[in-house]
Amino acid sequence: MSAEITRTLQRAAVVCVIILPILYLVIVYYRPGELRQEVPTTQKRFSLQSHLPPPSPCTCPDGSVLLKDHIPKDQYEKVAKRRAKELQQHKARTTSVLSRLLIALPNSPLQYPIQGFTVRPLTTTPIPGLALHAGQRSSYKVSLNVSKGVLTTENVAEGVKVQASFQFENHEAVFPITIKQPQLPVLHDMGTDINSHVTIATKTFLRYPQLKVLLSSIRRFYSNIEVVIADDSFEPEHITGEHIRQYFMPPAQGWFAGRNLAVSQVTTKYFLWVDDDFLFTENTKIEKLVEVMEAVPELDVLGGTVQGNQFYFSLLYEEGEEMEGGCLYRKSQGKFQSLPGYPQCFLASGVVNFFLARTDAIQKVGFDPKLQRVAHSEFFIDGLGSLLVATCDHVSIDHQPKTGNNKDNAHYARFRNPGNSDVEFKLQLHFFKNHLKCVKYG
Amino acid sequence: MSAEITRTLQRAAVVCVIILPILYLVIVYYRPGELRQEVPTTQKRFSLQSHLPPPSPCTCPDGSVLLKDHIPKDQYEKVAKRRAKELQQHKARTTSVLSRLLIALPNSPLQYPIQGFTVRPLTTTPIPGLALHAGQRSSYKVSLNVSKGVLTTENVAEGVKVQASFQFENHEAVFPITIKQPQLPVLHDMGTDINSHVTIATKTFLRYPQLKVLLSSIRRFYSNIEVVIADDSFEPEHITGEHIRQYFMPPAQGWFAGRNLAVSQVTTKYFLWVDDDFLFTENTKIEKLVEVMEAVPELDVLGGTVQGNQFYFSLLYEEGEEMEGGCLYRKSQGKFQSLPGYPQCFLASGVVNFFLARTDAIQKVGFDPKLQRVAHSEFFIDGLGSLLVATCDHVSIDHQPKTGNNKDNAHYARFRNPGNSDVEFKLQLHFFKNHLKCVKYG
Repeated sequence: MSAEITRTLQRAAVVCVIILPILYLVIVYYRPGELRQEVPTTQKRFSLQSHLPPPSPCTCPDGSVLLKDHIPKDQYEKVAKRRAKELQQHKARTTSVLSRLLIALPNSPLQYPIQGFTVRPLTTTPIPGLALHAGQRSSYKVSLNVSKGVLTTENVAEGVKVQASFQFENHEAVFPITIKQPQLPVLHDMGTDINSHVTIATKTFLRYPQLKVLLSSIRRFYSNIEVVIADDSFEPEHITGEHIRQYFMPPAQGWFAGRNLAVSQVTTKYFLWVDDDFLFTENTKIEKLVEVMEAVPELDVLGGTVQGNQFYFSLLYEEGEEMEGGCLYRKSQGKFQSLPGYPQCFLASGVVNFFLARTDAIQKVGFDPKLQRVAHSEFFIDGLGSLLVATCDHVSIDHQPKTGNNKDNAHYARFRNPGNSDVEFKLQLHFFKNHLKCVKYG
Repeated sequence: MSAEITRTLQRAAVVCVIILPILYLVIVYYRPGELRQEVPTTQKRFSLQSHLPPPSPCTCPDGSVLLKDHIPKDQYEKVAKRRAKELQQHKARTTSVLSRLLIALPNSPLQYPIQGFTVRPLTTTPIPGLALHAGQRSSYKVSLNVSKGVLTTENVAEGVKVQASFQFENHEAVFPITIKQPQLPVLHDMGTDINSHVTIATKTFLRYPQLKVLLSSIRRFYSNIEVVIADDSFEPEHITGEHIRQYFMPPAQGWFAGRNLAVSQVTTKYFLWVDDDFLFTENTKIEKLVEVMEAVPELDVLGGTVQGNQFYFSLLYEEGEEMEGGCLYRKSQGKFQSLPGYPQCFLASGVVNFFLARTDAIQKVGFDPKLQRVAHSEFFIDGLGSLLVATCDHVSIDHQPKTGNNKDNAHYARFRNPGNSDVEFKLQLHFFKNHLKCVKYG
């Protein structure tokens, strides 16, 4: 009996879900056979559609900076209002009916899919697994309807989540259907050697001597690897050489603008980030980093060590309550589990500025070009939850010793080192951009 | 009775899901009350865990280009092998146990969540809605276990999908739990006027006269708006003026490299893309495009008209079978529904090169810097399913008339117009990067 009803229901349900908001099926059919006793139900039993409790405020750890205090008092109200508006838009873009808690009720004669049913927009697709297993009736009336979300025009090219509700007598079930335009893969051809796997990327500012030493050291070990240089020096100097691409920016445009530029020009699957005062050694084996990334394809960033320093940190984040914002703790030397097969490597939230990275994943997060100086964690903060980050201790690079010219060093330092206004700017940025209440740098 | 069991079960389930692979609960409890008759079940009833049928090959429409034919014969086998390997990695990164079809079986005494239960890694979270509604017993033995996926170390910072199975007597249910590191919002402060909402972005090559005319026309209507220029001309000329940022690239580096560079430098929520030979008019009202984007926050790209030409197209894509690849049809003037509240605007898959765009969304897709010439659809192809694209006819820009200097025009044309090798290159790129079997340009 049940199989027949299933087939009938399925045939009836083979319709484009977006044109059938309400569907009533009257089924007049019975077949003697396996008897099922009715489970007596004395009241209407709706699918339990709970709402998860609204997020509660987060607690700022001791030593946190309260970001609200760094917004100028006369601007605070307007800034907070703009921030609240942007958060609402962000939610419209990122959450959906698929985040609602749905419970499958017990002892229901209804059978239905609870996961994995995805349809393409404007495409007729049968709903799998719909069935009714009830006691004998002379006729069966089952209704199936889909939420209004399906008919919303702006959703045609994006993932739209639908909830369908399915009823028989006083039993109802609600289950999700995802309407989603499938994405094309975007793959990179790794080619046949290290030069087609990896591009070296760096940013330079007022440090041509160091940059040239870096380049020489690269060429000792990798004679043909492509190097991309973002350069915002005041008096630009062309760096000549094969497989070197230099990009000139408005002077002093800034650190993260330069990093974002460099990444935007990489054509290989991976890039290796280095600072312009690093120095390649025989331990700077890019292939070893590639090996780990290839073995663990979910990884996005793999850091190494710089002059023996294996810097890394973890980020602990709580979303907090909507008006106030979240709580973030950057924990120095915080880390997680080691990588399977690579005990010398382990997961973290952020690493040192010497890392191999998956180009597409980094471009998806981006280096915020508003950050001109001394930014580092900010990239990993923006990437938290999107990037899978690890660090290894078996690949290293050296740091060129600080040398010479006091005048050059002073000039550089004036731009390199943050003033108080830089610090304030970053705190204000975290308040708005990352919707935070407080940050602790531990 | 059921509420008590629920509480007991929930208390027992309040554990970190990653340390309890198998959990057996023995419950010795009964309470007279609402009698429920047992539904006799004669065989073990497993949750229906179907697998959706493997994807079938797609059909190439008449007039398609078969991409395999454009890969040099002596390289084909190696290229296809590398492509298959990259696809496997892509799948490891993008699919999960959450795509499996799961069915809720009927007449089961088990109650459990089917959607919406998300836990943070390494965080103890109670499972909501677990309950047992069975007939009276002297004791109840219920088991709950979670799949091995939970224990996989590399998943700690990424969304990991878990399937939990829940059993009582011969009833079993399988339901999903998502383990996911929450992401911080990344919001843009729109500030207070058009200059803080929008940056104008363009790429220039060998067309300084036209570029200067464009800039003058912008300044007629927007005296302080920021303009970002990516420039790969052979003999670079500095463009002076306030609120203009010019970036110099290696000569003839290419069209999409320049576009990717320009977008990487935008600090506002939106940017307006224009070609370097466009001309602002009194109908080039950026505010009107911003208005639509703000009203429909799911939108990513909003095109206008260029000299009366409202070019747009739709992309029809079928994933196809794994070894062969997908089928893609770019349908000229194909479109979808209109936007709610804006009947002069409608959805499409791609639009003309005059559009307002949400900076973050465009950066997530990227303009592939390997494409040097005459690329347009490729951006929208890479963005299919990620970008929500629309076009309106109430905002327009003009195209500067083609003028003068035949020598300059010829020089430009030699670089601008694709040779046969460019066409072949793009087809080979689609074969690998987008894992396609065939493309039809309609």
